[in-house]
Amino acid sequence: MKDNFLLKTKNAERLYCEAAKELPIIDFHNHICVSDIVSEKQFADITELWIAADPYKHRLMRICGVNEHYITGNASAYEKFEKFCEIFPLIAGNPVYDWSRMELSFFFGINELPSRDTAKRIFDKANEMLKSPEYSAAGILARFNIEYQSPVATLVDDLSVFNGKGIAPSLRGDDLLAPTSELKGKISEISGVKISDVSSYIKAVSVILDAFAKKGCRFADHALDAGFFAGDTDGSKSCILELLGVEYAKRGWTLLLHLGAERKTSTRLLKLVGAAGGYAAVGHGVDVSALCGLLDRMELGGGLPDTVLFPLNMSDHAALAVMQGSFSEDGVASKVQLGPAWWWCDHALGIKNALSCISSFGALSKFIGMTTDSRSLLSLLRHDYFRRILCTWLDEQNEAGEWDLPYSAQRRIIEDISYTNAKIKINK
Amino acid sequence: MKDNFLLKTKNAERLYCEAAKELPIIDFHNHICVSDIVSEKQFADITELWIAADPYKHRLMRICGVNEHYITGNASAYEKFEKFCEIFPLIAGNPVYDWSRMELSFFFGINELPSRDTAKRIFDKANEMLKSPEYSAAGILARFNIEYQSPVATLVDDLSVFNGKGIAPSLRGDDLLAPTSELKGKISEISGVKISDVSSYIKAVSVILDAFAKKGCRFADHALDAGFFAGDTDGSKSCILELLGVEYAKRGWTLLLHLGAERKTSTRLLKLVGAAGGYAAVGHGVDVSALCGLLDRMELGGGLPDTVLFPLNMSDHAALAVMQGSFSEDGVASKVQLGPAWWWCDHALGIKNALSCISSFGALSKFIGMTTDSRSLLSLLRHDYFRRILCTWLDEQNEAGEWDLPYSAQRRIIEDISYTNAKIKINK
Amino acid sequence: MKDNFLLKTKNAERLYCEAAKELPIIDFHNHICVSDIVSEKQFADITELWIAADPYKHRLMRICGVNEHYITGNASAYEKFEKFCEIFPLIAGNPVYDWSRMELSFFFGINELPSRDTAKRIFDKANEMLKSPEYSAAGILARFNIEYQSPVATLVDDLSVFNGKGIAPSLRGDDLLAPTSELKGKISEISGVKISDVSSYIKAVSVILDAFAKKGCRFADHALDAGFFAGDTDGSKSCILELLGVEYAKRGWTLLLHLGAERKTSTRLLKLVGAAGGYAAVGHGVDVSALCGLLDRMELGGGLPDTVLFPLNMSDHAALAVMQGSFSEDGVASKVQLGPAWWWCDHALGIKNALSCISSFGALSKFIGMTTDSRSLLSLLRHDYFRRILCTWLDEQNEAGEWDLPYSAQRRIIEDISYTNAKIKINK
Repeated sequence: MKDNFLLKTKNAERLYCEAAKELPIIDFHNHICVSDIVSEKQFADITELWIAADPYKHRLMRICGVNEHYITGNASAYEKFEKFCEIFPLIAGNPVYDWSRMELSFFFGINELPSRDTAKRIFDKANEMLKSPEYSAAGILARFNIEYQSPVATLVDDLSVFNGKGIAPSLRGDDLLAPTSELKGKISEISGVKISDVSSYIKAVSVILDAFAKKGCRFADHALDAGFFAGDTDGSKSCILELLGVEYAKRGWTLLLHLGAERKTSTRLLKLVGAAGGYAAVGHGVDVSALCGLLDRMELGGGLPDTVLFPLNMSDHAALAVMQGSFSEDGVASKVQLGPAWWWCDHALGIKNALSCISSFGALSKFIGMTTDSRSLLSLLRHDYFRRILCTWLDEQNEAGEWDLPYSAQRRIIEDISYTNAKIKINK
Repeated sequence: MKDNFLLKTKNAERLYCEAAKELPIIDFHNHICVSDIVSEKQFADITELWIAADPYKHRLMRICGVNEHYITGNASAYEKFEKFCEIFPLIAGNPVYDWSRMELSFFFGINELPSRDTAKRIFDKANEMLKSPEYSAAGILARFNIEYQSPVATLVDDLSVFNGKGIAPSLRGDDLLAPTSELKGKISEISGVKISDVSSYIKAVSVILDAFAKKGCRFADHALDAGFFAGDTDGSKSCILELLGVEYAKRGWTLLLHLGAERKTSTRLLKLVGAAGGYAAVGHGVDVSALCGLLDRMELGGGLPDTVLFPLNMSDHAALAVMQGSFSEDGVASKVQLGPAWWWCDHALGIKNALSCISSFGALSKFIGMTTDSRSLLSLLRHDYFRRILCTWLDEQNEAGEWDLPYSAQRRIIEDISYTNAKIKINK
Repeated sequence: MKDNFLLKTKNAERLYCEAAKELPIIDFHNHICVSDIVSEKQFADITELWIAADPYKHRLMRICGVNEHYITGNASAYEKFEKFCEIFPLIAGNPVYDWSRMELSFFFGINELPSRDTAKRIFDKANEMLKSPEYSAAGILARFNIEYQSPVATLVDDLSVFNGKGIAPSLRGDDLLAPTSELKGKISEISGVKISDVSSYIKAVSVILDAFAKKGCRFADHALDAGFFAGDTDGSKSCILELLGVEYAKRGWTLLLHLGAERKTSTRLLKLVGAAGGYAAVGHGVDVSALCGLLDRMELGGGLPDTVLFPLNMSDHAALAVMQGSFSEDGVASKVQLGPAWWWCDHALGIKNALSCISSFGALSKFIGMTTDSRSLLSLLRHDYFRRILCTWLDEQNEAGEWDLPYSAQRRIIEDISYTNAKIKINK
């Protein structure tokens, strides 16, 4: 691909090259398999690395009518690869088209478009390269300039794999809101705290939170799916979340709220491909009133953590961007803020929409910037995708809006969004 | 009008001329009066043909403050025509402005703008032409290259008017969800099946569905108005719809779900101009969770038909475009998909928004494309409007997003959206 | 700032200079302190005039992490000023950045950007100027060509300050929907009508409405916050509003409905800075069904006033713009219409979104245009901001959509939106 891919103006190119390109990556929320990295796993073939780990690609193959046999079924690695290649180039417009081209180009030096004709050649060439240690999970990571990343871990996961080197756990807190007896048992065992009521439960959790903190954890993630507040009729889930929020705040962690996923769609697909198979939908608009209530009760109840909101419905970007101004703390910029375009919205359209909303309703320069939220190693390249779009967008807005920003200020905004603002959360 | 109307680049012009312009039309859902066509009806004047049949124009006259007397009242045909002409050109921006200019130009060769000054001249010239058999309902249709269209018919309508020649019925199913005794009586009579419970009701309906199928029916339409799911407290309507969906799936029909209209607005206008008078509003966001539940139950219960979603609230485009990935079937592209921008959204802004959402959240090339949903014969010209916008939009996206699509792929996308994808539904 | 700020084309510049620039301002809804004007108040310093009166600026300082001490706390005027200057230029993209530059340039002839370095110089220069009577509240107003403005007053406010000269009261009606005993007592006293039931309450209110009318009142404002309809379980608030609406209609007033604010956010900020401190959020989508019901009952119950809808959630612009076509009255254009982008949406993004929606779903040329809804005197400059954006937007749409509008029609649209359409409401 061209060096100036998506850089539409000379100034955008300059901003990218001088300010964005070389900045370290902070990927504050992802689902990368840490043990693969620690064990320096080698991949059997490009299908395993490139397709099997990426539900976005599965989803798009389904949309194109590819038989499930070739997606998650028993077809051979090559058959699956070929079927994926065959949906090119008619998937142009979907971010998978862009990402796939970038991934082939960046990791394998392959610049031809996947297709039925090129499938075999690409497959063989990539597989050859994958034999080398440079293409182990660790080798692939090493190609990025990653300063910090925090794959999710549940409270009862083994943290021994997190041994520094820029990888820290981030807490996936979902199962903590309505803990099963089994989970409480484990938490009690790990923490050494007997759990008899909410208070001792939080105490036990806190002990393990401290262990997470020692491993460098700075982020805790909760998914408030569509209907979360409506379904939480007795308020117990949001009550627990309030108490946890206060604990996160004490430790200077940032709370990531993932909002509005509608995970219950096709029971058929759930049975076929499991819970994270790429077929989730986008639910209702976020209940801003309930969300404000939750944050307010944290603030009143002992501490509101810095909070990043990830709505899955793009039409909620504006409303949640406004919340930048609704909660504040002395010395903390964008205490509660809209995060980067999330999940299915993670394309140029979504990215630009989030930038416009953050900018128009608040302070763009305080935006925490990109994270992948992906289990695909290759997806770290999306930081580069994001930065390219950001540089062009900023230059265009500066021109269109006649902001008259000096280059130094433009550069500062790019740097703060691409790196510094996330760094501040880590150093907090 | 200029040949290159709305074609903003050389390549868009080429795509339109070589790929889009001459393709047959498939208008898979409209409200055209079939008996007018069969009887080769002649129109009394341009007011009857051009204004009386088009509630979009009534609505816009009301917005401009025109007295109802000149819209649906007792004013003469010329007075009504003149009042409509007088709102030009200050309605620019509304699609009626574009459509009206295209209609005058294409059907009557009239290229001057309607206005108080030009009204009489246009009226007389058009009326003169309307006397000719070329301007009968059938003659007007013959000007289009229509391969298939399917005006709606209710289950108990007389199907004898559907005698092939590219016109088949599509089922308007609304009254089937909560059938009156009278309707059940008719269905029982036509089908020869005694109705005593839900099961025999569906059996009776099925007999008539077969009669529809024999007439070439391939589409069934249900309107889930704002509050449909909320109002369906005992679930009986959605239960019936599930059972019907399974029947549609058996026959390979495509289900069209029209979502979110708010038809209860001004009681005064309802009394004055009837239920379809052009004053409906746009309701709440679609209840994605309930919608997924409905589709899931069909899938589990015997068969999910291919489904096209038509939300009336543009801010639902994104959420419903995501559903492309939530249901799938081997060999079927975009099993459940966002349809073309619907009803009040049927303007350049809405069309481009739908294209962006389908493209960013799924696979643009699998999009079923345009249908008019109109009772106006002249509205078939909107396929041309749609295709022009599509060609320009695709070319611009290809450039802006650096898709590097070869011309052949661009052409294929235009052809598939303008024609082939709808054809697949018909041939299913 | 440059004369052609935001005027991106030659034609936009021509439209602005010839049609928009010199038109009188009608600011039909604001919160300006009338007694400050009557008393020809002088401002202590630019902080009092420019920052203290503008919660948008407070909000943005909070977003940037400025300590509350320097926003609404006990810091000195200069300290507050300096802290505000320091957030430049990294707030570019937020409308406060544009407005602030315009305000400094227009009122003080200061064209350098605020910053830590320039703060002292700007502060001193502006304060020197503020000593002159030309910079009294009245002097500042006199710099604008204001034909009519109507700051809000509650029903029991002293109207004696409204002594003509282009300033009339507009009614802030919120507390009338659920009146306290105290309020009923006052209303009874002022009106001389004994209040014993709803009917006598409305009668008493009507007496004072007549007094408002004598002072030139033409607008009544109600805020239907997020949850208004849901929270109004016994319907008493909306019942009273219906009855009031009929009274407004009788007097030819226009009803302004402010929709969807979520005012309950941070209790901490409420305590610190009061109810109007700039930290409100944006609530749920508007309940169109309930809103239609309210307007319909007014229409059936004796009279629907002309109504302007101000949603705070930009994703409601489309749905509410559609309502242009849902209620009508002979001879009245856009009886019920979407108003200008409101409050937090009052930036280029919001303004253009509202224009697109009004235009695509209705008749742009009938749009009532800008009002500030602000308590800041300087904010009247936002009419100029709006007009510049409008001129450029119209020219670009005319080109992009190939409207082929003659210049005279473009000019007419600019004039009608900038001035005439609001004037019609006043003269009604």
